[in-house]
Amino acid sequence: MAPVNPAPPRSGARFGFELLTTDAGGTEARRGRVTTAHGVVETPVFMPVGTLGTVKALTPAHLLEIGAEIILGNTYHLYLRPGLEVVEALGGLHRMAAWSRPILTDSGGFQVFSLRDSARIKESGVTFRSHLDGSAHELSPERAIAIQETLGSDIMMAFDECPPASASPAAMRAAVERTTRWAKRCIAARTREDNALFGIVQGGTDRALRERSLADLVDLPFDGLALGGLSVGESRELTWSTVAALAPQLPADRPRYLMGVGTPEDLLVCIGHGVDMFDCVLPTRNARNARVMTPEGDLNLRNTRHRLDDRPIDESCACYTCRTFTRGYLRHLHKAQEILFSTLASLHNLAYLIALVGGARAAIEAGDYASYRDELLARRRSGLG
Amino acid sequence: MAPVNPAPPRSGARFGFELLTTDAGGTEARRGRVTTAHGVVETPVFMPVGTLGTVKALTPAHLLEIGAEIILGNTYHLYLRPGLEVVEALGGLHRMAAWSRPILTDSGGFQVFSLRDSARIKESGVTFRSHLDGSAHELSPERAIAIQETLGSDIMMAFDECPPASASPAAMRAAVERTTRWAKRCIAARTREDNALFGIVQGGTDRALRERSLADLVDLPFDGLALGGLSVGESRELTWSTVAALAPQLPADRPRYLMGVGTPEDLLVCIGHGVDMFDCVLPTRNARNARVMTPEGDLNLRNTRHRLDDRPIDESCACYTCRTFTRGYLRHLHKAQEILFSTLASLHNLAYLIALVGGARAAIEAGDYASYRDELLARRRSGLG
Repeated sequence: MAPVNPAPPRSGARFGFELLTTDAGGTEARRGRVTTAHGVVETPVFMPVGTLGTVKALTPAHLLEIGAEIILGNTYHLYLRPGLEVVEALGGLHRMAAWSRPILTDSGGFQVFSLRDSARIKESGVTFRSHLDGSAHELSPERAIAIQETLGSDIMMAFDECPPASASPAAMRAAVERTTRWAKRCIAARTREDNALFGIVQGGTDRALRERSLADLVDLPFDGLALGGLSVGESRELTWSTVAALAPQLPADRPRYLMGVGTPEDLLVCIGHGVDMFDCVLPTRNARNARVMTPEGDLNLRNTRHRLDDRPIDESCACYTCRTFTRGYLRHLHKAQEILFSTLASLHNLAYLIALVGGARAAIEAGDYASYRDELLARRRSGLG
Repeated sequence: MAPVNPAPPRSGARFGFELLTTDAGGTEARRGRVTTAHGVVETPVFMPVGTLGTVKALTPAHLLEIGAEIILGNTYHLYLRPGLEVVEALGGLHRMAAWSRPILTDSGGFQVFSLRDSARIKESGVTFRSHLDGSAHELSPERAIAIQETLGSDIMMAFDECPPASASPAAMRAAVERTTRWAKRCIAARTREDNALFGIVQGGTDRALRERSLADLVDLPFDGLALGGLSVGESRELTWSTVAALAPQLPADRPRYLMGVGTPEDLLVCIGHGVDMFDCVLPTRNARNARVMTPEGDLNLRNTRHRLDDRPIDESCACYTCRTFTRGYLRHLHKAQEILFSTLASLHNLAYLIALVGGARAAIEAGDYASYRDELLARRRSGLG
């Protein structure tokens, strides 16, 4: 009897990053290639989020169909549910979720620091109570690495302290210092060589503090560096100006990952500042709430004006949803709370962002990223959608 | 700009039924072929139910993948939501739902007679209040045919009176008589010739009344005949004995449809009594509640014993779910209330029933349906699942 699905093939390749080209047109945009044991990822890339081992409402076949190259898993969520014993028994996260391409996992830091009321922060780590059943747990740099290694992540993230945007300057500084100490413990905790570990630059929107965090981390043996703690409540302008100042300072020979971002506008702007990797729950969460992306801006499919509309969400989109279904039918599905709505809208939103970064890669190769970005931003602002 | 999807091709074929063979092994089982303007349906067939213009949680691509040949739409539900104006604007039910194969629609009778508290039954028709917003509506034989013609149904059902299983003999008899009068009005109300109209034999589990209903309808120009008002609360034994008595009496040269049935056992038994067509919400409704079908009986994927189980639901099943995912992972998805669970479990349950009737067709052709039926029934009873 054949097994339900074989363990996904591992190429045996060690992690690597190749900077293929930078935009000849004057932006900081980069065209790169990340190599992992589960395959290659072309950058800039948008990574769909599969919190609990599924990108919500989509099958792995749907993700392959729209060209998803890498997905995320959330350490905090997977650790609590289904738990490591289950993931291990089912052959690791790749096999369990039937995803044979690369997986990046966060460290759980962002989630446990969001549980302010139930989390106790010590130098050794963070004790917290599960949002599911109140049970007590601990995450530490060592534990976060061990969990990610057990999950079988291709790209692990360091366990960092994530202060809220409203934190005091002193608290922000203390978080940066702790993040550096924890970064070193994460590196020391690794027991596998077939995956990657990225460090996370913190410091809020304080440019000097961000640069200090970067200086702390840049000489550590991280395989890539991320900007964390952005898009956590500060204005979009502050997010963008922080990225504009910091991203170009991240080492050119390693991937640059902007965590938890974002909108089509965020991607277009931040690719121009030299960011290679993005993830966000927004396209799938918005989809479930009937908000879908188009080149002319987002549409709310709840709106009565779509009732009799026999056009697709986006006439220029090649996804199954846009090839097959009308706005009027999608609005009906949403109003009737049909599960199919979430599937079709999520498929489209992810296809839109994946096509958007695909276009960005082509524009960088063509040496004119600024035109691509500015044209798309202007169309989105036009709001014809 | 190409339209989102073209109107599905119509073959131009007139409705027809060809009886290919009957079981040489002594059962009443039949192997047939229904021809419609949207293609051919091999019988015996199981028809997935797409109440609101979607088989819940599945895309049309999923349905094609598992070999669904015909789906159902519910007149009552589609009339209320999205409403006929929307279905017409979006090109009819086939194009709206992106289903290019045949569609059978019920008449709405079953649903409005289920609204006992708000339905008023007169000879002219039934006035009722919408379960959605309380608005007042009327269905009659003429209206039910007009709505089904507007939807673009390939096989329409007559508007019948559906008494509950608990109805008195007098009420049962009155319902049969009214169903006959309404059947004639349905036939007179037709304005199209490119689709079919089936009559519905009523009479509960009273064999004499059933035979009277059949005698009333058999000479009317219906393209097929259905047994309605079964599996509505009576015991399984009474359902089966009624089908055993009646189905072989239905005209051999027209399709025989057992409405709203059923389980794998129901299908296996009733195919043996000569039924050609089945529909039921059970496989998709049960799937959403974690109950999945296997050759060894149903499994409840909520059960803790599946937690670490890395086997598929059914090792002999060729569906995407069984080729790809473990019981342990599916249990996790259900516990985490992930939308993907409903999709994968629904896909499997429908694939299971469609494969089961496919096997029945092969067994009838091979002239030994009884062995096929009895072996499958015994395995299901074994309960190893």
